[in-house]
Amino acid sequence: MKIGILGSGRGTNFEALFEAIQKGELQAQIVLVISDVEKAPILEKARIHKIPYLYLPPGKFKTYLEPSIEADYIHALQNHGVEWVVLAGYMRVLKGDFFRAYKGKILNIHPSLLPAFRGLDAWRQALEAGAKITGCTVHFVDEGLDTGPIVLQEAVKVLDEDTPETLHARLQKAEHRLYPEALKLIAEGRILVKGRRVVIKNSP
Amino acid sequence: MKIGILGSGRGTNFEALFEAIQKGELQAQIVLVISDVEKAPILEKARIHKIPYLYLPPGKFKTYLEPSIEADYIHALQNHGVEWVVLAGYMRVLKGDFFRAYKGKILNIHPSLLPAFRGLDAWRQALEAGAKITGCTVHFVDEGLDTGPIVLQEAVKVLDEDTPETLHARLQKAEHRLYPEALKLIAEGRILVKGRRVVIKNSP
Repeated sequence: MKIGILGSGRGTNFEALFEAIQKGELQAQIVLVISDVEKAPILEKARIHKIPYLYLPPGKFKTYLEPSIEADYIHALQNHGVEWVVLAGYMRVLKGDFFRAYKGKILNIHPSLLPAFRGLDAWRQALEAGAKITGCTVHFVDEGLDTGPIVLQEAVKVLDEDTPETLHARLQKAEHRLYPEALKLIAEGRILVKGRRVVIKNSP
Repeated sequence: MKIGILGSGRGTNFEALFEAIQKGELQAQIVLVISDVEKAPILEKARIHKIPYLYLPPGKFKTYLEPSIEADYIHALQNHGVEWVVLAGYMRVLKGDFFRAYKGKILNIHPSLLPAFRGLDAWRQALEAGAKITGCTVHFVDEGLDTGPIVLQEAVKVLDEDTPETLHARLQKAEHRLYPEALKLIAEGRILVKGRRVVIKNSP
């Protein structure tokens, strides 16, 4: 299972996946890391781990990529033999060409129990809604915002004393467990998508 | 703590509250049960438990009460000394007069982790969304639909083999734990509402 990772930030989920592979918990290989942010720590982490990495300037749009740049992404991913695209704190929306190239092979992790708290700063949304339980979700990416079929979810309690920062930190710990677990199920061929429901098969 | 219960159906949450009181887990008294459905089992359960009950015909509207009938509800609740109104499968929306009479003293339980899956058949909504985790929520009732401050939530796993019926049954079991627990916190004076957030104090 050859994975390409797209990230815009610190790359803590990339790190969690890398460690799961190192420990032999996940049979996969991270073959490329791409970022739209030149100084993103995720690129430095890739360099340290000796994984090929690439910065691709995002172009003139704020929330998505210029089509020609999206083509560069696809080209780079395909050149490195990437089979699965794993979004790890990637802050842009992917568009049609990307979905045609990697249809049903793009995953994301989101810091809420989707469909609750879609979009940015989901931990802050959960606090503002007064939720007592939130969590994180690994899901397939489709052309909507945080709407693709859900692979796994993990619940996380909201504490009365939580600030956005403390809740975010606890959600990230859950993410670092959940993302390798979801990729393991995929690597083992145990995932069956039926419409919006994802069924996990017992054995490979 | 004198409780009035409004229900339209089987009354399983009423039964759970009644049992918690019988066992001494909840210091409260159910002084009246009202239903908008004449043949609702909740009324028969009240009769068996020797709790005053009342059927009030709902009038001509489907989703809420005629104002004059709402006045009858308030009158009956006040006559019985009801301090807290507890909705237990009550299928109508309450209106302005009700909120003025029992402001901040109306509770509901909903079979989802609000704000996800508001409205009817929340268990079916969770299945259709492909959620892996849902749950139930005890919340204060305000004039929105399932929007008031959240007191407690409990997470419930969705299983691959769940049907709407099996998931609903598992959610109800969680409700029967959560509703008495929430009322206990209120009876002990441990609930503090701060905007949309509810803080639970450690000691009375």
